[in-house]
Amino acid sequence: MTDTVAFDQQNNRLVIIDQTLLPGELRLLSLHTVEEIEHAIKTLQVRGAPAIGVAAAIGLAVLAKEIAGNYEQTLQAYAQQLKSTRPTAVNLAWAIDRLLAGAHDPQSLAEKALALWNEDVATCRAIGENGAALLRAGDAILTHCNAGRLAAVRYGTALAPVYVAKEQGKHVQVYADETRPLLQGARLTAFELAEAGVPVTLLCDNMAAALLQSGRVNAVFTGADRIARSGDCANKIGSLGLSILSKHFGVPFYVCAPFSTVDGGCATGENIPIEQREAAEVTALWYRQPMAPAGVGVFNPAFDVVPACNITGIVTERGIFAPTELPIDAK
Amino acid sequence: MTDTVAFDQQNNRLVIIDQTLLPGELRLLSLHTVEEIEHAIKTLQVRGAPAIGVAAAIGLAVLAKEIAGNYEQTLQAYAQQLKSTRPTAVNLAWAIDRLLAGAHDPQSLAEKALALWNEDVATCRAIGENGAALLRAGDAILTHCNAGRLAAVRYGTALAPVYVAKEQGKHVQVYADETRPLLQGARLTAFELAEAGVPVTLLCDNMAAALLQSGRVNAVFTGADRIARSGDCANKIGSLGLSILSKHFGVPFYVCAPFSTVDGGCATGENIPIEQREAAEVTALWYRQPMAPAGVGVFNPAFDVVPACNITGIVTERGIFAPTELPIDAK
Repeated sequence: MTDTVAFDQQNNRLVIIDQTLLPGELRLLSLHTVEEIEHAIKTLQVRGAPAIGVAAAIGLAVLAKEIAGNYEQTLQAYAQQLKSTRPTAVNLAWAIDRLLAGAHDPQSLAEKALALWNEDVATCRAIGENGAALLRAGDAILTHCNAGRLAAVRYGTALAPVYVAKEQGKHVQVYADETRPLLQGARLTAFELAEAGVPVTLLCDNMAAALLQSGRVNAVFTGADRIARSGDCANKIGSLGLSILSKHFGVPFYVCAPFSTVDGGCATGENIPIEQREAAEVTALWYRQPMAPAGVGVFNPAFDVVPACNITGIVTERGIFAPTELPIDAK
Repeated sequence: MTDTVAFDQQNNRLVIIDQTLLPGELRLLSLHTVEEIEHAIKTLQVRGAPAIGVAAAIGLAVLAKEIAGNYEQTLQAYAQQLKSTRPTAVNLAWAIDRLLAGAHDPQSLAEKALALWNEDVATCRAIGENGAALLRAGDAILTHCNAGRLAAVRYGTALAPVYVAKEQGKHVQVYADETRPLLQGARLTAFELAEAGVPVTLLCDNMAAALLQSGRVNAVFTGADRIARSGDCANKIGSLGLSILSKHFGVPFYVCAPFSTVDGGCATGENIPIEQREAAEVTALWYRQPMAPAGVGVFNPAFDVVPACNITGIVTERGIFAPTELPIDAK
């Protein structure tokens, strides 16, 4: 399997899978200008909180090496530009801040970017090992959006436990919400699980209540884009509703995320900025075919907040915590 | 505005708006063979519980007039064929049973089909008047699927109160769930409301929780495909989840339906057959563009059941009832 994000140091390029072309085509993009990197993050060629953090860090290291003059000022401007590409996922700012802490020379940045890449692999692997302990052979989980290997360098967050369980011989099946408007579940989760040989069943988001009611799902696993000190978790739009439905039907709801997703500066979910995206995502679907009357009003928040009270546990690289008992000072 | 379903008696044709072409094109279809009529109902060229009831009744009257020999047997075979086109909406069987009660000659059937058509208009108008009393000027409602004029001859059920309120000078705005997989909200509800000058805002189904949480919605109005004696209501897939979310956020949830939707032979929601539809509706969207990997498993129930405990009231042509207090014997 190809890594979702990679650092081609020989050619000084950020290499990503273009996720806007999946599942039809697996194409790699080699990026080295700030416009290319900004475009890739904004248009979701690379997406998923851990993946955009690592991509932005590698991107900044690539850019640093090509700065002609006025190094420090240009570097800081690039950092600001990349940080502002998407507002909700805190991993983006976290990764760039980590990169810029200490030495700023291009060689140091490249080493730190590579370290972040390695750390992401190890972190997701640890999330997978911790989460796999929650699964029994034959279990079925429901997931929303894509928090699999395509949302990180490898393994992913919400799907990492499924991959690790499979390695352990515990075969688990996955129900995947298609996740409108951008269909990350249909296009990405279904793709990567099918490729990995994990049985996957696709459903429309509004079918989740009927599925949970049917008793076929043992647990819900999602990722997170930002976790507040209260344990409230911002995640892909629809996660709030899914958490309420899970609680209603008595199905455990787990958030799987690295500690880099925890924002110690954010008291509760109400302080998390929610990205509003363009209407055409809703009116024209992924393939840009119009399917609503021209000019119709559109409500299109990209994220919502799952309150801590709906979360059974947060699966991290350091273990599983009750949402209100995250060791945030230790970050 | 064109009626959704009409009886062209001069040419002995069932005339319907082809709803699969909306919102791009408003085309009328003139049908007179059993294959055409069956196809129209199965492929949702005509859909919505009241509309398919009236369409099937007119269709049967049209067919009766063209039977060459073996009248009674052929008529009964047509009736069975039309009844079995879709399993969940009880209005279909109700309308055909009404048509066949008493005299069976072609002229009697034509008169009864026309009477059913007129009754549908009057019934939906009465639902609108009863439901409009629940609305104040400036209110916003959320609706799911299409239970508007395109789901009946005119007015509709869930949207009838909005149209009547508008006539009364009480302007109401509507949030419309797009309603995957077939996008009846995006394609039909947004279309008919925009055409009628009612402000409409489209959202993906998974955004309903965030919308209800925001406090912008005063009530949820949906239609129903079958109502059990217990007050449980089968309706478009996603209605169950929406009812749980509405209750969670303290937003009243009203079901608007004629008494022809009440199935006195059905004790509870568990007795209502749920139509399972083909996978391609989920994997290929409305416009038949593939957006999921080939061969992925699919969960695609067309309906779910809203339990009576989640329903604030059922708005009918005879008034508004608590779901457990429907006067079913009076049917």
